[in-house]
Amino acid sequence: MAKSKFDYVRQFEIDDPCLPNCWIVIRIDGKGFHKFTEAHNYMKPNDERGLGLMSCAAQRVMNEFKEIVLAYGQSDEYSFVFHKNCQVFNRRASKIMTNVVSLFASSFTMYWPRYFNTQELQYPPAFDARVVLYPSDENLTDYLSWRQADCHINNLYNTCFWKLVQEKGLSPAQSEARLRGTLSSDKNELLFSEFNINYNNIPELYRKGSVLIRNKELNGPEKTMTSNNEDKTRYSKSEQKKALASCLVLHCDIIRKKFWEEHPYILSDK
Amino acid sequence: MAKSKFDYVRQFEIDDPCLPNCWIVIRIDGKGFHKFTEAHNYMKPNDERGLGLMSCAAQRVMNEFKEIVLAYGQSDEYSFVFHKNCQVFNRRASKIMTNVVSLFASSFTMYWPRYFNTQELQYPPAFDARVVLYPSDENLTDYLSWRQADCHINNLYNTCFWKLVQEKGLSPAQSEARLRGTLSSDKNELLFSEFNINYNNIPELYRKGSVLIRNKELNGPEKTMTSNNEDKTRYSKSEQKKALASCLVLHCDIIRKKFWEEHPYILSDK
Amino acid sequence: MAKSKFDYVRQFEIDDPCLPNCWIVIRIDGKGFHKFTEAHNYMKPNDERGLGLMSCAAQRVMNEFKEIVLAYGQSDEYSFVFHKNCQVFNRRASKIMTNVVSLFASSFTMYWPRYFNTQELQYPPAFDARVVLYPSDENLTDYLSWRQADCHINNLYNTCFWKLVQEKGLSPAQSEARLRGTLSSDKNELLFSEFNINYNNIPELYRKGSVLIRNKELNGPEKTMTSNNEDKTRYSKSEQKKALASCLVLHCDIIRKKFWEEHPYILSDK
Amino acid sequence: MAKSKFDYVRQFEIDDPCLPNCWIVIRIDGKGFHKFTEAHNYMKPNDERGLGLMSCAAQRVMNEFKEIVLAYGQSDEYSFVFHKNCQVFNRRASKIMTNVVSLFASSFTMYWPRYFNTQELQYPPAFDARVVLYPSDENLTDYLSWRQADCHINNLYNTCFWKLVQEKGLSPAQSEARLRGTLSSDKNELLFSEFNINYNNIPELYRKGSVLIRNKELNGPEKTMTSNNEDKTRYSKSEQKKALASCLVLHCDIIRKKFWEEHPYILSDK
Repeated sequence: MAKSKFDYVRQFEIDDPCLPNCWIVIRIDGKGFHKFTEAHNYMKPNDERGLGLMSCAAQRVMNEFKEIVLAYGQSDEYSFVFHKNCQVFNRRASKIMTNVVSLFASSFTMYWPRYFNTQELQYPPAFDARVVLYPSDENLTDYLSWRQADCHINNLYNTCFWKLVQEKGLSPAQSEARLRGTLSSDKNELLFSEFNINYNNIPELYRKGSVLIRNKELNGPEKTMTSNNEDKTRYSKSEQKKALASCLVLHCDIIRKKFWEEHPYILSDK
Repeated sequence: MAKSKFDYVRQFEIDDPCLPNCWIVIRIDGKGFHKFTEAHNYMKPNDERGLGLMSCAAQRVMNEFKEIVLAYGQSDEYSFVFHKNCQVFNRRASKIMTNVVSLFASSFTMYWPRYFNTQELQYPPAFDARVVLYPSDENLTDYLSWRQADCHINNLYNTCFWKLVQEKGLSPAQSEARLRGTLSSDKNELLFSEFNINYNNIPELYRKGSVLIRNKELNGPEKTMTSNNEDKTRYSKSEQKKALASCLVLHCDIIRKKFWEEHPYILSDK
Repeated sequence: MAKSKFDYVRQFEIDDPCLPNCWIVIRIDGKGFHKFTEAHNYMKPNDERGLGLMSCAAQRVMNEFKEIVLAYGQSDEYSFVFHKNCQVFNRRASKIMTNVVSLFASSFTMYWPRYFNTQELQYPPAFDARVVLYPSDENLTDYLSWRQADCHINNLYNTCFWKLVQEKGLSPAQSEARLRGTLSSDKNELLFSEFNINYNNIPELYRKGSVLIRNKELNGPEKTMTSNNEDKTRYSKSEQKKALASCLVLHCDIIRKKFWEEHPYILSDK
Repeated sequence: MAKSKFDYVRQFEIDDPCLPNCWIVIRIDGKGFHKFTEAHNYMKPNDERGLGLMSCAAQRVMNEFKEIVLAYGQSDEYSFVFHKNCQVFNRRASKIMTNVVSLFASSFTMYWPRYFNTQELQYPPAFDARVVLYPSDENLTDYLSWRQADCHINNLYNTCFWKLVQEKGLSPAQSEARLRGTLSSDKNELLFSEFNINYNNIPELYRKGSVLIRNKELNGPEKTMTSNNEDKTRYSKSEQKKALASCLVLHCDIIRKKFWEEHPYILSDK
């Protein structure tokens, strides 16, 4: 059995290095999560357990890949930002995205019972992932702003949609028709006048999504910020400490400059 | 909050279509599986449970992606062959490989207890994946031959290595030194003369790896071939039927022409 | 002056190898040739000098790159087919296409006076080039058929268009309007009934374009085929011999199987 | 003749967009210019005619592509810097590099007689080209520094080498042996002690290469800088004006910050 005779097929493997000095963003996205959330009785519009599990899996990824400087998640997606000078897997795009997405998927599956208790996982979930490169800090923060703006817009819509369905008894089609063409201000007004809800009082987890950063300065400015208390209770004591030591889960605004000014080390040169 | 202001960042996403009319191979590979198998007390040189779980996860992938015509697995790797004319995800490389690898990883994790019973999963496993394109049928079958030849060579070596360690009490370094520079014939001879083992009697699962193909002709020529009986017992009855209906697990030679002549539909035009 | 300090910038250069075992087609295309042909008083619808110069430049390219097995030209474009197993420049796409296109452009410029005599070149012409990979022989011959079908369709249209303008005195807009929505059969009829022209009697150079192949079998079946006589007179005696020895310029059908059956060595394995 | 039957082959054409917000450098390089300069009796170590022709062709390219902000040339290479926000050809890499390199090659060929008079062009020259992306201004200026440092190092070496050959009668092998292992300081000393040459007095054209920039501020700070007088005499009056209006040819240091501070508009946002 001549191994060498077949060895030539390795030449068909093609390298896909990321351009140096660019921020590497891996964005993962749940595949068919509309069906998945139905099958697992997720609460609508937001399921705290589901969001907690996503952030738990994301933290596992951040613990593994030390060159991730920040991760941002909302709904069934998570973005991981590798430092522009990172050398992980020699910056090979396929290697990076498949390692990240597979670790995320196996973590999501493994930690499922911690968040969903007796509600059993019906089938293994899949996620897709893509690599996007951003040459400048501004491009990167604009990317993150784009995702957080998307979170806001979707959450405002979904909050209205489900209120109309759950509390006013509208069908999904009726609810959609009611909201068609409305502006953000209209939706805020709808929530206030019809449901007595001030949108700004809805938990930041839902309005802002989740921001994971390294907890490098345990005694620095971060310690006063709200960390994700609910997560703590679901971790074992030792895991908890490890997670806390390396990650903070925030639900704050990252569109305004303030966040970046308060955490200058995130984007700083390494 | 002007969404449009940030929307430009989408332009940094770059498409990565696979060349049409080429066989698309996704090869996944366990990350750090030397450590993983140690941490989970895998039997050496082969762990039937571990190999069974790999094939179980692979079947889950094949059930999901109907354009996979064959999968081949050995050790901690699995190759999935998508038909050269497949249209899955518009043939976008990142989409295909990340969906496959994440579904594999979550399946591996979810089905772990079926194969390892009370032995708990210590941490979530990661896999990498790559896309390789093969323009001709010959290139593709040479690729698969390359992987099966690799399986044979590694398994012959590992069988000798662990026999020397487990039964002769050699240290790993001594065992390695003993085998350095030996030919296949030397290793066969070693097994026979020192351990009274005829290598050809070792289970085909170990010597040939696992070949998954569609069970399209339930009453056709395949039904006489050995399917993977052990798997049946670990599936629920309904899952079993579904899996059997769609996949056969073989442990046969795919290097010789015979296999391809007996299953001409695998590579045929769709 | 520390050279090493800047050397890191080389890491930004990214390789672009062509997939092995695929036919490599480089198609070049005149940039702004509508304007170029106007500025140089090209005859309409076809200028024999212009087409001759294109083929002359293409022959220069074929003489330089021995792994080109065939070239096909029409109008202001030329396609060069590198053998699927060629190793030119390690199959680096950028290297191949830029060498081909720059040699074509400098040859076009240098040999201009041989074809246009006293008509001076007004400004240097530019061409773009692209690389396209074709995995199978059928894909490749379909590509060439596509280009030759394009030649036919455009030439039939242009022949009608310019007849109407030049002999009936229609304005370009009127001529275009007259032809809008007509089928090939209508155009053939128009030429016959209004201009007494049998389209099939128009020179094959215009109807079929130009096919360059290697003249490997000087005493073989090719010698009876029509070579491009006009070109001979414009070459010096020694160049002529060299060109003839290495290339034949044909104006024949390459869509039907006959051509490929008569020249089996073109696509044969090397 | 069914056109549609073959149309599918267009799907094999794959787009290659450059990442947005990166500087696009096209570097062209003479193919086989050692042989070319021998065949055309270039003076050694530097031929003013040859360098003038290179810059003339480069200016032609800059006149055509208005989004080039700077070009730098030395020896048989030229680098063209497209602005990081340029939209030329939708930033398609193949399109940009092939247009640039073919226009350069045809210009080099067309303008040859202006620089080499009665010395005839023996054969059409070829150039290769590559695209390199630089995310930051610093990466870009480091790239240009790398090329200018390369110019310096090669010119110092070549100046010594040819002095030893031309004036001391050493064979090329002897000259090479004499210089092996020498530092820059050794070479400066050699030129001074053995040939009474102060390297710093050698023309900047040879030591620094050629920098082409836009002459946007005709009455601004640039007008006092040395433009390339020799070129003027070789252009027709009208061309001269056009060239002067759009380009300045400098032979200055671009490694030090001074150059970039004096011409801030080159890298400024558009």
